[in-house]
Order: sequence, then structure tokens, then C-alpha cells
Amino acid sequence: MAKHDNIHRAITPLVSVSADDVSLHCAKKMPHANGYLYNKDMLLQLNCRGFAISQFMQPEPAKYSHGPSLEAKTFIQPEHHYYAHHPGRFFYVKDLDTQEVFSLPHEPMRKTLDSFKFSQRNNEICWHIIHQEVSFEITAQLVNDAVVECWQIHVVNQSKVNKNLALYPYFTIGYQSWMNQQADFCPQLNAIVAKSITPYQKVEQYYEHQSLQDTTFLWSQGKADAWLANQQLFEGEGGLTLPDAIVQSELPNQGTQYQVACGCLQYNLALAPNERFQNTWLFGPAKDENAIKEISANFLSTIDSNGKEEFSSTSVSLSGDDRLFHYINHWLPRQINMHGVTNRLTTDPQTRNYLQDNMGMSFLAPLRAKQAFLTAISQQHITGEMPDGILLNPDAELKYINQVPHSDHSAWLAICLLCYLDETNDVDILHHRCGYLDSEQQDSVLTHLEKAIDYLLLQRDERGLCYISQGDWCDPMNMVGHLGKGVSSWLSLACAYSIDCFVTIVKNYVSSTQQNSCQANVLRFTQAKEALNHAVNQHCWDGDWYARGINDHGRVFGTKADEEGRIYLNPQSWALLSQAVSPAKQYSMLNAVQSQLLTPYGVMMLSPSYTAMDEGIGRITQKSPGVAENGSVYNHASVFYAYALYQIGEYDMAFSVLSKMLPSEADQLIRGQLPSFIPNYYRGAYHQFPDYAGKSSHLFNTGTVAWVYRCVVEELCGLKGNKEGLLIQPKLPRSLPTLTGTRNFRGATIEFSYQQIEIDETKIWLNEQQLKHPRIDSIEAGKTYQLRVDLPRRPSE
Amino acid sequence: MAKHDNIHRAITPLVSVSADDVSLHCAKKMPHANGYLYNKDMLLQLNCRGFAISQFMQPEPAKYSHGPSLEAKTFIQPEHHYYAHHPGRFFYVKDLDTQEVFSLPHEPMRKTLDSFKFSQRNNEICWHIIHQEVSFEITAQLVNDAVVECWQIHVVNQSKVNKNLALYPYFTIGYQSWMNQQADFCPQLNAIVAKSITPYQKVEQYYEHQSLQDTTFLWSQGKADAWLANQQLFEGEGGLTLPDAIVQSELPNQGTQYQVACGCLQYNLALAPNERFQNTWLFGPAKDENAIKEISANFLSTIDSNGKEEFSSTSVSLSGDDRLFHYINHWLPRQINMHGVTNRLTTDPQTRNYLQDNMGMSFLAPLRAKQAFLTAISQQHITGEMPDGILLNPDAELKYINQVPHSDHSAWLAICLLCYLDETNDVDILHHRCGYLDSEQQDSVLTHLEKAIDYLLLQRDERGLCYISQGDWCDPMNMVGHLGKGVSSWLSLACAYSIDCFVTIVKNYVSSTQQNSCQANVLRFTQAKEALNHAVNQHCWDGDWYARGINDHGRVFGTKADEEGRIYLNPQSWALLSQAVSPAKQYSMLNAVQSQLLTPYGVMMLSPSYTAMDEGIGRITQKSPGVAENGSVYNHASVFYAYALYQIGEYDMAFSVLSKMLPSEADQLIRGQLPSFIPNYYRGAYHQFPDYAGKSSHLFNTGTVAWVYRCVVEELCGLKGNKEGLLIQPKLPRSLPTLTGTRNFRGATIEFSYQQIEIDETKIWLNEQQLKHPRIDSIEAGKTYQLRVDLPRRPSE
Repeated sequence: MAKHDNIHRAITPLVSVSADDVSLHCAKKMPHANGYLYNKDMLLQLNCRGFAISQFMQPEPAKYSHGPSLEAKTFIQPEHHYYAHHPGRFFYVKDLDTQEVFSLPHEPMRKTLDSFKFSQRNNEICWHIIHQEVSFEITAQLVNDAVVECWQIHVVNQSKVNKNLALYPYFTIGYQSWMNQQADFCPQLNAIVAKSITPYQKVEQYYEHQSLQDTTFLWSQGKADAWLANQQLFEGEGGLTLPDAIVQSELPNQGTQYQVACGCLQYNLALAPNERFQNTWLFGPAKDENAIKEISANFLSTIDSNGKEEFSSTSVSLSGDDRLFHYINHWLPRQINMHGVTNRLTTDPQTRNYLQDNMGMSFLAPLRAKQAFLTAISQQHITGEMPDGILLNPDAELKYINQVPHSDHSAWLAICLLCYLDETNDVDILHHRCGYLDSEQQDSVLTHLEKAIDYLLLQRDERGLCYISQGDWCDPMNMVGHLGKGVSSWLSLACAYSIDCFVTIVKNYVSSTQQNSCQANVLRFTQAKEALNHAVNQHCWDGDWYARGINDHGRVFGTKADEEGRIYLNPQSWALLSQAVSPAKQYSMLNAVQSQLLTPYGVMMLSPSYTAMDEGIGRITQKSPGVAENGSVYNHASVFYAYALYQIGEYDMAFSVLSKMLPSEADQLIRGQLPSFIPNYYRGAYHQFPDYAGKSSHLFNTGTVAWVYRCVVEELCGLKGNKEGLLIQPKLPRSLPTLTGTRNFRGATIEFSYQQIEIDETKIWLNEQQLKHPRIDSIEAGKTYQLRVDLPRRPSE
Repeated sequence: MAKHDNIHRAITPLVSVSADDVSLHCAKKMPHANGYLYNKDMLLQLNCRGFAISQFMQPEPAKYSHGPSLEAKTFIQPEHHYYAHHPGRFFYVKDLDTQEVFSLPHEPMRKTLDSFKFSQRNNEICWHIIHQEVSFEITAQLVNDAVVECWQIHVVNQSKVNKNLALYPYFTIGYQSWMNQQADFCPQLNAIVAKSITPYQKVEQYYEHQSLQDTTFLWSQGKADAWLANQQLFEGEGGLTLPDAIVQSELPNQGTQYQVACGCLQYNLALAPNERFQNTWLFGPAKDENAIKEISANFLSTIDSNGKEEFSSTSVSLSGDDRLFHYINHWLPRQINMHGVTNRLTTDPQTRNYLQDNMGMSFLAPLRAKQAFLTAISQQHITGEMPDGILLNPDAELKYINQVPHSDHSAWLAICLLCYLDETNDVDILHHRCGYLDSEQQDSVLTHLEKAIDYLLLQRDERGLCYISQGDWCDPMNMVGHLGKGVSSWLSLACAYSIDCFVTIVKNYVSSTQQNSCQANVLRFTQAKEALNHAVNQHCWDGDWYARGINDHGRVFGTKADEEGRIYLNPQSWALLSQAVSPAKQYSMLNAVQSQLLTPYGVMMLSPSYTAMDEGIGRITQKSPGVAENGSVYNHASVFYAYALYQIGEYDMAFSVLSKMLPSEADQLIRGQLPSFIPNYYRGAYHQFPDYAGKSSHLFNTGTVAWVYRCVVEELCGLKGNKEGLLIQPKLPRSLPTLTGTRNFRGATIEFSYQQIEIDETKIWLNEQQLKHPRIDSIEAGKTYQLRVDLPRRPSE
């Protein structure tokens, strides 16, 4: 730990990865690298250089550390822009003997420090910085049931001489309100308290705002020597790179009235060699002084209860020391759980997101997933249509994109529920009776599923293709069908696949007596599925791949005739899932994807990216090329492709798509991101704008992760549940000769070990007994099973 | 001009003022000092250090130079906060021989420069900076009929050696859009072009946004040697205080895709002694490249047409060389005109603001004022109620505070129209027929006026006091009467005064034949006025001053019983205007104002400022104490007081109130503002928060200025029009022994000269003929009159 910088750097890679630690060893090469902490009420994204994005729910998303200007309320944006006065948590340090000043972790002063390490761990983000023989360990944590950041520092004098330092945490509070803002130090609390009143103009808002936590506080465990809560005085002429208040010998102990506040405290440290200083700060929102008192009084007990994720165990754990396996074992379930617990920090998650996020939670916290599915189903319309968003509390409203009608939400119900049933065998859910958004009627979940499919089938045109309305899974594809005629080939295929899932649910999870009552619907749906696949083949096959749809004016798009948006990934992936595609078509289609959409950073969602508005397609064509839906490597679409590749036996390609979702050592400087999460996209437009291609969005909210988990657990490991037990069908790529790990399944533990060897047929041993069928039946909770599979090694291509 | 800094500073005051130039000679002592430029479509507020706030109308307010984060759309806020990445217009300069870098005018590098001058002139804002024997003159101008900033620089080598410099304008473009943003240099245009698409999600917004000017450009007259449009690359690790791109020998000629843009160009200058470099840049929004081409092609012709204000002449001009007189002669009409021309950069100005702003325009551009009055009157409800805002275009909507019902708008009609009639004698307006917002009916303006008063009279309680609804002139006083019972003493008095104005209009400007038809109403209104005054005296007199109202729960507030908000200024001022107050009451009331509300920076609007929510009063009590309506020196309220003091003969006090509206040499460091405009407030709460008292809001939108002009023209100079001609009643304070100037009135010029001397009675000479009556009758347009008045000097108090 105390190694000297140069030695340290020489032997350390830029990014080091171990079981539950991803660390970055330079503050400059990946300036946007960040990590996140979360609990059910808040999210804290910390950039390696000290910038921070923090939000909490009250119940709508709110901030307690603001930018310097009045910021717009908006949904979380990709490729966040940082700037000098961006919210952050910084520590200035002044050597009182030399008067040298530097800032930790890197901003705002940006001085090169002797050594730097930024680490994402499970429940903490920390920095270990050594500068001039003083070691600084800074740790940020959240506690489970409170909205508060907990910061700790350990300073150790590693030199052989006495060090006289002044340490100044400088936490941004920012522009809180044009109505009222004011900050001071409260000696009773030992905290800087910045009060404000959320601006409003209508009298009814006064009552709505009663519960808002408009105060931001910075509480210190130890007593500070001086303080300052006035941002302008802090900075003075020196600016953030050499603040006037730091240059002075002591902070002036001043608050502020209707000016921008900051939280700055001064601690004078006289450290003998090896002497240590430590302190803890709490930073967050509060209703008032009493709340601050309570939070600070409780923090020691709550910090101890931390470290308990809300999921009891993961579904799979793989042996091996590489980024992907560490991600799968540790960061992937964490990212899935973050989605399940925070609901993307919205009170009206988009229905498709909510369902898929909870599909992921089926593997980690099935009871929570079940409750979410029932919540969603209870908001179905009596027509069978799923709403655009699921309201999570009585005051919630459909906002932003949920005010635009999208056509796909009903398709996700059967898809996600099948996954849940496979993992849990919780057949009871199918008989659970739920109401509707707009009717007193109560029906079983099974009936709700039927209604969802019936609704989708009703919303078809004369060709039998599904209307797209103002968008399907692709939110901004809003002008293909806004006149009421345009159709989506993807949605038609998704509808077919959803029927498939429904039929599987009935076949596998509905008792034979009850099956009879569904039989007519199953038959009808099965015929509809064939019709859907047929219609797509008839109207949307372009010769070498599937088009994306037919717009209001009858124009088929996503074809060779298009200069931009020639080929979209989703229709290809879902034609595989829905089995619409014939072997010959499949061959040309896969070739087209590989040649037109593949990049070193994954598979692009479409290509070429649009560079000008197409009024027959809509808003997607106005997005910046290579960004988000307009042709980025949009990981949610990529993982559909990977999942579909597994279904057709293309294990190598599937594994390759999955692997590209994380930055590698070779390309991490381009991606600019740490391998602790999968972002919603990497920049695409690979051929059009190569300088930007591969750059991470750094947005960790993404429907991708639930599907990655399915791919890993059910496909790569091939350990997928069904009514009888656990199916065994490993799908190892050539590049993985062996795979070992542990699968937790319905309370049992399966320790598995796969190898690809020179044999002709797969052989399976369970507890050293060879199995005849690739399935573990009647699994008992609490038991541990030894599973060994020998797989025939496939010849290299 | 080329004097050395130290000499320069020694002989120059911090702020110098001449006829049409206000200059600041230090970049550090008044860091928030600023000036503004405007035309009917845009406003550019330039801070002395280079920060800028710019908005234009398309037709709703929009920006082309953004902050670094997604900013909220909001109305213009007081006490604007600046920060390192705040929008601005900067010039970096690098000495290629020494590699020294500095920035002009002061930000972002904040280096101390040898000499600094920031000047507000009529149609330009400029800086003259000398550093290391190089002189930089930077000028910003707007042209009349285009939305574009024009920047010019003159660089002169004043040294005796050759200077090799690189000059880099760095104009912020900022975070334009999360949907699409992209910037590049366009060689055909010789401009950096930053395109974006205003974010939206609903398809109808796509069509609404068609006309938006989403592109920002920086056009250069001369060819640059290099360019950079990528903010992140510009800044690099060096940050804005020493940008990587400036340290390099040449800008890297790079654009940006979906990153924050900037406009930076490089010009390498090799200047021999006395050699000069000059260039012009245009910066602003545009629809597309064609528009940029057109703007840049036209700019030379448009810049020539500049300098013509939209008002043809001012109403008064005073001789003398002090701040107040320069302000009155030059900056006051400019500020009034800015209100009249820009309508405060909104499409739905508040009715009371729109009427009062145009009351001011009656002196400068009476035709424009007339049109505005007719526009407002045409939006009256058939009930007589004036709406909360006046919609200036067919798509405009009532926004922000205009969605909250306020009770006073109808009271302003007669008040403002009387002023217009006095100045213009345009009796025709009274017979002009206008419609209503909610009826096909057409009535004369006179009838509209009657209806307005009738509406006010109807909205009274059983005591005969006017209901306050969710606020009166005081916008945030929203919970005094939101339950439908609370009343406003101020509004009751304003209603009485409005009746007075109406009666005067009838008496002075309605022909005797027509007067007959009004007689019944005049009588009824006059009785109502007496009843209003009586009711206020009966229910709202607190013993020493008038209370502010009685709330829904029957609580009289603004009285001695209140710890906070004990006394409000407005009821006192308007009791003087409405003549509700008896001589004895007047004495105690004025004493109360002087002792409780007077500060060195003017008269506070109320005192003590509220420090906690009072649910019986409302939102005003939640505003920061000393800020805006919560007890600042709110100049709009102060000028009512000054105007009222003139009516009761308190000329000294009135003049003192007016004088305090501008920063003096003695207090300008506290106010922090230049004497080129009156801000909407200075911080109050003088006794509660003395450290902040006197600080300017720097917000130059204020209803104050129209009334200041009335005070100066009609009261101080005592030259007020009426039907017959021009009344002569100068109201000189003791502190002004003489006053000379010119009054432009209905096309004639009156050159006046007043002196206070030891005589007993006022004597008036017109063209050397002594007048019997204090009035100039039958004034002829085009003529010049010599007016001399000798006034009896009053004994000092």
C-alpha cells in the first residue's frame, strides 16, 4: 500500500480487476470513468476525478447537490458532461509548512499526484492516493435505509518528518432555489446546513411540497477548526484551482444568504511520522435540523447494516479470473439488482423496462419480481393493452416518453413471465387474480396474458402486420406509424415470439385439466403466430435481411434501397427468436449483420446512422449519428441478438457479442469506462464517425443486463429451469475449453464443471452418476449437486 | 489612451460617468457589474469580466450560448450566479515569444492586466485593455433588425518592439441538446457552425419546432489560422485557466459530434510597433447555413443603421454633470425603451407590467404606447376584469405567475391611461372601439375603463374592501385571500386612486356633451372611492400606519402586532395617492416609514423581512429575507412612494428616494452595480442581515423606470401636460438650488431654467413674458419656448 508511486505505476496496469474490486490507477487517461452506489431511495454516481451525480426519490427524483445554474428536470442522460463547477466531492489539502495546495481525488485543481487509485467495490467507492509521502484513503458508502452519503478519510503520514496539513472537504451544494437559499454552520449539529425552498408559484404546490427535503447538510464526526458555506467567498479571485479561502490561513466561518452555498470545513492536522487522522462526514438531504440530528445519530448503526444487498444469492458464479467472469459473478447481479431496487429512479418506469428489469430480478429476488409483475399486470387496460408506464405510487404520473403511445408493451408480459416461471416454477402466479386500470373486473394472470396477446393481434393491419403507433421498443421511431397505418416488422416478430412464450407457459406450467380451457386460445394464437411470421416474410424480407417496417405511406424501410438505416439489428434477432426465418434466409441475414453491423465494440443497432431527418421514420433519425437508437452499439439490442444466436446454436458468435459488452484491456481507453457495468450504449456509426466509435455512454440504466444474465445462466451455462427441474445444455464457445462454477437454483446448489473434449456425444454425470436425460429432476432445496458434463469439442471453423 | 496602468489608475476613479458613457476601471472590485444591449428580438447582458447572458425570441425566449448543463427554462432571475463555465465571450492571448497566456476581458484566466476599462455606451459595450504594451479594444454591438452579436477587436502594438501574438476568441456554445449536437468549421462560410436539435418527444412538437433557430455560429470577417469547436479538447487537463489547446502551437482544427461545442479561432499576429490588427466576428443563432450566409452578407449595412433608438426623442433633458442627471437624460429613457421594445422577453407580459411599461413609453414613443394599451384593452374580459397577462402573439400562452389569479390588473388601466393622455392629449383613444377576450361586443375605451372599475368594485367584501385573491401587485402574497375572503388594503386604495384617475380623465379629456353620459358613473365611482378610503381607515389603520390587509381568517397584518412584516410601504404610499389619509395620520405614517423602512439604499418594501412561512400570508414569507418582495429595497414600491411624496409636497424626501435608486460613489462597492440602470431591487433586511444590504439584483427589468420618468418630468421638473397645454409646477428639493434643461412636449421644445431664491411667491416667465397662470397654453409643435421660473427658497428644516 505504501509503495512509492513510480514503482507502483510500473507494476500496475491502468485498470486492475479482482473478484469484487475494479480499480483505475490514473486520474487522467479515462477521465470519465466512474462507479455507482445505490440503495432503494438514492443513487450516487462518482466519477474517478471527484465529480458526482446524486439523486434521491421524495418520491420524485430530486437533488441535494446541484450545479451552479438552475438545472432542467430531465431523465438521466447518456454521455454526461462534466465541467469545473459540476457537483462533486473534493478534498483540498494544504501543506502548512510549504503552503503547497493540491486537491483530491483530482479535481478541481488537477495536480498530478504521486499515486492514484480509484476503486469500485460492492458497497463502496474509494480512492487511495499518496502524495508527498502522505497517504489518503477516501471512502464513500451509502447505507441501506437512509438517503445519505457517508464519507470517510484516513490520512497517514508515511514520511519520516512531521507533517502539518490543513484538510478541507469541499462538497458542492450549488444553486438550490431562486425563492430561498441560505447556509450556515450549526454548532449543535456540528454540520453545515444549507436550507432552501423548492421554487413554486401555485398555492397548491405549497401543500404538495410540504414533505420535500429541501435542506442539504454536511455533518462532521470530529470538530472542524473552521468552516465556510459561501461558494463565492470560497472561490474568490483564485477560482476553484486556487481558492482564496484555502490560501488564507483559516476559513472565515461565514454562511450565506441567497447566494450559492458550499460545504467546506477545515481540519488542521499535525501528524508525526506514521500518525494517522481519520474522520467521517455525512452528506445528503434532510427535512430540517431534527432530521439531521436523527440521521447523524443513527449512522453508526446503519453503516454496520450496510453491505447486505437486497438479493440473497446470485444464480450463477463462474470460476476464473477474467473481466467477464468477475463481471458475471459480481457486477452483473449488482447492476440487475440496482435496476430492480431503484426502478431507474422514476416513479413511472416504462412498462417494457419494468418487466424486463424484473425478469432479471427473477434470478436474484424472485418475490420482488413477482410483486412487480403483479403490479404491472394490475395496470393493464381491460382491452389487454399494457400502459406505457407502470405507476409506482398513487401520486405518480406518466411523464416524458410515457406520454407518447408505444405499441410493444403488451408483448413483454409472456416473454418475461416465462423466464420467471422457468427460474421459480411458481405456477401459483398464473392463478393469481388481478384487476385492471380501467375496470372492476378481476382475472387470473393467465387471462391477463391472453388478453395482452389478443390486444396485440387486434392491432394489426390488413397484411397481418402489427401497427407501430408512435413507436415500439424503439422509442423515438415515432413517425413510421403516427398516422395510424405504419407497421413494425420487429413488433410482428416480437408478437409471434410472445405467443411462443405463452404457449410454452401453458404447456409447461398449466395443469392438464386447465390446459383444456386454454386449448382454443392456444390453437388460435399458434395459427396467428404462423400468420405473423408469414406476413413478415412476405412483406418485409428484403432479399438478404428483414426490413424494419412499412411506414404510413407504404414505404418499406431498413432495406437495400435506403442510403441510411439500411439494416436494423432487431428484426434479424427476433426473426431468429420467432423462427420466422428459413435456413437459407438465416445464412444471408447473419452475413448481412456481420458485414454491416459488427464493430470491434459490438453490434450496431442500425447502419448507416441517419444524418438527416426522415419524416417517414421520425425522431430517431434526428438523434446524433452513432448515439443511442441512431446506430450506436446499443447493448439492449445486442443482447437480443446474442440470445437469439444461442437459440440457433451459434455459440461462438453469441459469446463474442456478450464479451464485447465490456471494455477490454486493449480498448478501454477508447471506451473510457471501467468493466464494472455494461452501459446502455457505446458510440456506433463506426464507419461514419470512427473517431467517436466505441465511446461509452456511461449510463448504467439498461434493459441489457437482465438478458445478459439469461444468456449466461440459461444459455452459456445451459442451466435453465422448467417444471420438472433443471435442464442441462451448456453452450460453450470454442474459446472456452472448460467452464466451472456454481448454480443456485430453487434453494439447491449445483456445482458444475464442463469440458470440451474429443468425444462424439455429450455425457453428463450428476454426483458421479451418468444421466440419461439432460435434466436434473426433483431438485431438493438445501442439497448440493455435483454436475459434470463432457462436451464434444467442435472443430474450429 | 496609452498611459501606463499605474498612472492611469491613480488618476481615474473606479467608475467614471459622462453624458453617454459609464465606465468601470477595475475588473475585480465590482465583479458583477454589467451592461446590456437590446433590440426588439434579443437581449445581451455583458458582465464586465466577459460573462454573458443572451436571449432571443423565436417567438418564445431561447438561447444560442448555453451553460455546460441542461438548464431549466425559467423567467429572468435576480442576482444571477456566474461560474467558470458560465456562457461568455472571451479572448485568450498568447505571446508567442514568451509563451505567456492571458485572457480578456478578465475571465476565464483572471490574470491582472495592466489596465482595464469596461464601458457601457448607448449602442455598444466595450473594453479597453492594455497589457504588456499592447492595446486591445473590444466592442460588442447589436444591430437593429437581426438576432446577432457583432464583436470587433482592435489590437495595437504600443511597444517599441515587434510583438508576435496569437489571439483566440473563445465564445461559449455549451450544452445545446441531448438529442443532437454537432459542431464544425465551415470554410465556405468562414464560420464555426454548431448545429443542434431542440429536444422533444411528442410528434406534434416536431412540427412546432420547425422554425426554431437551433444552430449557433461564430463567423469571422478575416480568415483564421486555425480553429476548434470541441469544448473538451479546448480545455483538456489545463482547464479554462490554461487550456491545452492554447498551450499547443496551433488549434487542432477539430469539430465535435454529440459533445459540448465551443467557438474558438486562432489568429497569429506579427505586429511591428504601432501596427494594428482588427477583425469582426458575428455570433448568434441561425436556422441553417443559408441564414448564416445572409446574416454575414448583410451585417455591414445593418451595423450602419444601428445607433437609432426606436424612440425619436426623450421628454426631458437636464443640465448638469452628475450620475442622476446623466441617468435621467440618457440611461433612463433607454431602460424604459428596452421594456417597451422587448416586453421583458416574454410573449405574455403581466398585465400590470405591460400597462406601466407602456405608461413609460408614452413619453418616448406614444404611438407604440397607444397600440399597447389597445392590445391590452382588447384582452379585457367582458366582466371588466383584465387578464393576468397580455398575449402578444396568437400562439402565446399564460405562463409562470400568469397562471395564478391576481386581483389588481384592472386597477392600472385608468392610472396608466391618464398619464398617456396628459402627455399626448390623444383624446381619440377614449373613443376607439375595442373588443373583449370573451365576447364579440365592441366598446369604446372609455367604456372599457368603466368596466374595469366596476369589476374592481364588485370584487369587494362586506366591509367594502377589495378581495386580494391569490395576490395583488405583490405577486407572491398568495395566501392572504386564496380562500376567497382575504382583502388587500393596498388594492382598495389603488382602486380608489384608479377611480380618481378615471374621474380626471372624464373631467379633462371627455367633451362636456359626452360627460353627461358618464355623469352617473362618475358620481357612483366618486362615492365608491370615498367608501373605499373610509373602509381602509376603519379596518386597516393600525394607530400609526396602514396595515397591508386582512386575511381569510380575519387577521389584520402589517401591523404593530406582527413580529415580522410589521409595516409595508405600499399601503402608506397609496393612502397618500388616494387621499385616504388625514393630516394627523400622515404625520405618524411618514414617521413610521422613515424610522422602520428607510435604509441608506432606499426604502424597504416591508420590515422586518419574514424569516419563516406564514400560511396566512403566503409565498412572500418564504422568499429569502431581504430579497425581492420579502423586504428588499424594491424600487418599484419605492418609486410609488416617491411619486406619492410629490403629491403631498414632500419634495426633499421624494428626491432623496429617487436619488437612492442609483449607486453613488460612496456606496457603489456595496451595491456592486454601475449607475447605468436602476435594478428591480437592492437587498433590504437592513437591520436583520446588514452584510448583504444594498446589494443590487442586477435585474434591469422593473416597473420602476416608467414611474421614475413621471416623477422627473411631471414632478421634479413640474412640466406635466393636460388638455390645455403644459402645467408648470417645479418641485425642487432644497438640495437643488437651480435646475435647467429641455422639455420636449407635443412637438415643441421648452427650454427651462429654475432657481430657488429669496422671494415669497413663484414667478414664471415664458419667452421673457411673465405668466399669470402656471400653464403654457396652446403649445405649437416645432416652436421653442424659453421658460424661467423663480421659486421661493424654502427654509431648511
